[in-house]
Amino acid sequence: MIGKIYDEALSNGQGYEWLRYLCKQIGPRLSGSTGAQKAVTWTKQVMEQQQFDRVFLQDIKVPYWVRGAKEEAYIKVGKQKTKVPIAALGGSVATAPKGVEAEVIEVKSFQELRDLGKEKVKGKIVFFNRPMDPTKLNTFEAYGRAVEQRANGATEAANLGAVGAIVRSMSTSQDDFPHTGSMRYGTGVPLIPTAGISTNGANLLSQQLKANPNLTFYFRQNCETMPDADSHNVVGELKGSENPDEIIVVGGHLDSWDLAEGAHDDGAGCVQSMEVLRILKALGYKPKRTIRAVMFMNEENGLRGGVKYADLAKQNKENHIAAVESDNGGFTPRGFGIVGKPAQRAKALLWKDLLAPYGLAEIGPGGGGADIGPLAQTGTVLFGFKPDSQRYFDVHHASNDNFENVNKRELDLGAASMAAMIYLLDKYGI
Amino acid sequence: MIGKIYDEALSNGQGYEWLRYLCKQIGPRLSGSTGAQKAVTWTKQVMEQQQFDRVFLQDIKVPYWVRGAKEEAYIKVGKQKTKVPIAALGGSVATAPKGVEAEVIEVKSFQELRDLGKEKVKGKIVFFNRPMDPTKLNTFEAYGRAVEQRANGATEAANLGAVGAIVRSMSTSQDDFPHTGSMRYGTGVPLIPTAGISTNGANLLSQQLKANPNLTFYFRQNCETMPDADSHNVVGELKGSENPDEIIVVGGHLDSWDLAEGAHDDGAGCVQSMEVLRILKALGYKPKRTIRAVMFMNEENGLRGGVKYADLAKQNKENHIAAVESDNGGFTPRGFGIVGKPAQRAKALLWKDLLAPYGLAEIGPGGGGADIGPLAQTGTVLFGFKPDSQRYFDVHHASNDNFENVNKRELDLGAASMAAMIYLLDKYGI
Repeated sequence: MIGKIYDEALSNGQGYEWLRYLCKQIGPRLSGSTGAQKAVTWTKQVMEQQQFDRVFLQDIKVPYWVRGAKEEAYIKVGKQKTKVPIAALGGSVATAPKGVEAEVIEVKSFQELRDLGKEKVKGKIVFFNRPMDPTKLNTFEAYGRAVEQRANGATEAANLGAVGAIVRSMSTSQDDFPHTGSMRYGTGVPLIPTAGISTNGANLLSQQLKANPNLTFYFRQNCETMPDADSHNVVGELKGSENPDEIIVVGGHLDSWDLAEGAHDDGAGCVQSMEVLRILKALGYKPKRTIRAVMFMNEENGLRGGVKYADLAKQNKENHIAAVESDNGGFTPRGFGIVGKPAQRAKALLWKDLLAPYGLAEIGPGGGGADIGPLAQTGTVLFGFKPDSQRYFDVHHASNDNFENVNKRELDLGAASMAAMIYLLDKYGI
Repeated sequence: MIGKIYDEALSNGQGYEWLRYLCKQIGPRLSGSTGAQKAVTWTKQVMEQQQFDRVFLQDIKVPYWVRGAKEEAYIKVGKQKTKVPIAALGGSVATAPKGVEAEVIEVKSFQELRDLGKEKVKGKIVFFNRPMDPTKLNTFEAYGRAVEQRANGATEAANLGAVGAIVRSMSTSQDDFPHTGSMRYGTGVPLIPTAGISTNGANLLSQQLKANPNLTFYFRQNCETMPDADSHNVVGELKGSENPDEIIVVGGHLDSWDLAEGAHDDGAGCVQSMEVLRILKALGYKPKRTIRAVMFMNEENGLRGGVKYADLAKQNKENHIAAVESDNGGFTPRGFGIVGKPAQRAKALLWKDLLAPYGLAEIGPGGGGADIGPLAQTGTVLFGFKPDSQRYFDVHHASNDNFENVNKRELDLGAASMAAMIYLLDKYGI
C-alpha cells in the first residue's frame, strides 16, 4: 500500500499544480487580506471538486495587520547615505510619517543589551545582530536560538528607552532579502517601530559601526494594525467506514506573510494535505477512521485557526486520535517528529522499517506543529513532518518564498510520506 | 573530529566561493575547450595557494567535440512550422548544412524499433520518447533505465536506415531545456545526426504525431569532432605522516558539458574535493596516509582522465587503498555507495553510527564513480558520495546547470561528509 501511495503521488501528483495556482493566481495571503479570503474560497472549491465526503468552513476572527507603503532605510555617515533593505516586522507600529533617525547600539544578546543599561540605550536604535548558528545541522535549531531577537527585541529595547529596533534577518543565506515575521510588545512598554534587515545589510551596518560608532540609522515604515477580520479554517473530510468518530487530521496553514507567495511557508503544507486525501481516494482506499485535511488560518500572527479548531473539537466532543502537520517546507522528506506518550511513540517507531526505504530515517521525539499543537491538550498524538531543512530559511518570511523555489518531486514525495503516515495511523491506530 | 569537520565546513567553507569563480569566471569547460584549460590552471593555482604539500598535473589527450552554431528544429504540419528546443548530443555528427527533414517514427524502446523493421524506418527520423520513470525514488535508477536511448539510439536507428535520431531529454522536469550528453556510434553504421529534445518539445511532438502521423521534423546542427587535444588531470596532495605510500583519493571531474556552467556536474565535486583537503589542513590534522584531491578531466565524453590516473598509479606502483568521488551533484548528503570486497564493505559499515547523526543514513553497496572506477582493477575500495537525488536531473547536462541552482549549505555539507569519510579511511584503513 505504501508503495502504491508513492507511485500515485509521483505519477499523478496534483499538489504542484495546485501550488502554482495558490502562488501565482492568489499570491500573498496574510490573515485578513483579500488573498487569504480568496485562498479560503479556492481550497474549499478544490476539495469539493475532488468530491471529498464533506467540505466545510470554521468561522474565526483574525488579527489584520497591513504593511502599507514600502519601507525605506539608510545608514548615514556624515552626509553619505547608504540604502539598506528592511521589512517591518509583523505587528510592529509605524514610525512617525517622516521616519526615525538615531545613533545605533549593536548587540548580540538581550543580556548584552541589559548590561549596557538605560543611559547608553536611551534615544538610540538597537541593532540585534546575532546570526543563526551555521553549525547547527538542523536549521530549525539555529532559528530557535535566534528568533527571540525578532519576537521580543523591540520590547527589550523599549524597556531601556530605545526609539527603534532593527533585527538581523533569520536567514541561512547572505543576501539582500529582509525577512519579516511576527513580534509582540510586552505589556506596558512603549510601542517602538521594529524591522528586519537583510543579512548583507546587517553585515554592512556592523562593519560601518566599527569604523563610525556615531553613524545614524534612518528608517520609515507605514504599517498598521486594523480591527480583527472575519476568516476561516477550511476542512475536507473522508468519512471513516468502521470508526467514523475517531478523527485523524493532516494539515498546513493557509495564511502566509505578505512579502511573497508563501510557497514553502506554507502553501506546500496545504496542497500536500489535500493531496493526501486525493491519493487515498484515487487508490480506492476506504479509511476505517475519519480523515480530515485542515487548512488552518492565521498561523503566522496569532494561531487563531489552530486554537479555534481545538476548541471546536472539544466543544463537539470529537475524538482526535492523531494529527500530522507539514509546515517546514516542501523539501525532500527525512522523517517525522512525534509528540505523545512513550507507548504511543513506541508504536509509531514500529513503523520505522516500513518508512525507512522511502528516505524517512528520522522518526523520533520532536515538534508536532504550531497549528495542531492545541489538540495535544486533549491527548491527540502529534506528528510533525520533517523535510530536509537546509534551504528553508533562505526563503522563510522573505520575498523569495515563491513557487519557483519549490521542486515538484520533493513536494510530491512529502505528500506521499504524509499519506503513508496517515495510512498507518488509520490502519493500526495509535 | 567529525564534529569539528562539520563545524569548519559550515563556518568557514570555501567551496561555494570557489564554485562561484569556476562557474561565473570560467564557465563551461568541455574537454579540449579554452574553459577546460582555464579550469586546469585555476584549480592548480587554488591548491597551490592553499599550500597543499604537492600540486601537479598529469598529461592526457582528450576528445575535442564542438557544438558550433546553435541548433534549429521544428515540427512541420502542412505549411505550419512549430519550433522546438533541441541540443546536439555530444559526439554526434552535424546534419547537412541545410539540415535534414523527414517523417518521424516514435518508439519507446529498441525492441519496438526493431520490430518495425527496415521498411518502416528507412529514410525517417526516429524519435526515442521513453521518459525517465517518475516512480523510481532514486532518480539515478530512472536515468539508468532511460539513458541507452541517448547513448545508442542513433546506432539502433541507423541500423534500420533512419536519417536522424531525436531523443527525449533525460530530465525529471517538464520544461524547455534540451539535455545533451555523450553518444557513440557502433562500428560500421552510417553516422546519422542525433539530438536531445526538451521534455515539453517531446510531449508536443508526440501529441502532434497522434493527430498527424505524416508530419515532418526538421533539424539542423553544426557540431564537429576535432583532433584530440592536450589536457590534464590536476592533483593536490597532503603527504602522509606514517604511511605516505598508502594513497586515498577524493575527487570529481573538472570538465563539463558546453551548455552551462557545470555547477552540479561536476563543479560541485571538484570544489568539495579541494575543500576536503582545506578542512583537514585548517583543523591541523596530520594524515597518516597520503590524501589526494584529484580533478579528473574528460569524464563526460571519454573518461580519459580516470583511465590515465589509474594507468599512472599502476605504472608508478602506487598503492591506492581507497577513492571517494562526488559526481552526483552538490545536494544534501544522504550516504555513500561502496564498491569493494564484503569484508571491506563490512568495515565501512562499522562507521555507520558515527555518520548517521549527520544525515548519512544510506551506507551500503552501490556505485563508486566513473572517474575512480578504473582504480578498482588494482583493488582500490571505491566510495560514491550519495547526495539527495531529487533535483539532479532537472539540470543535468542542460543549460540550467548553473551556480544559482546550488545551495551553499547543501554544498558545504557534502564536503564535510566526504572529509569525514576520508578521515575515517585515513585513521582506520580499509
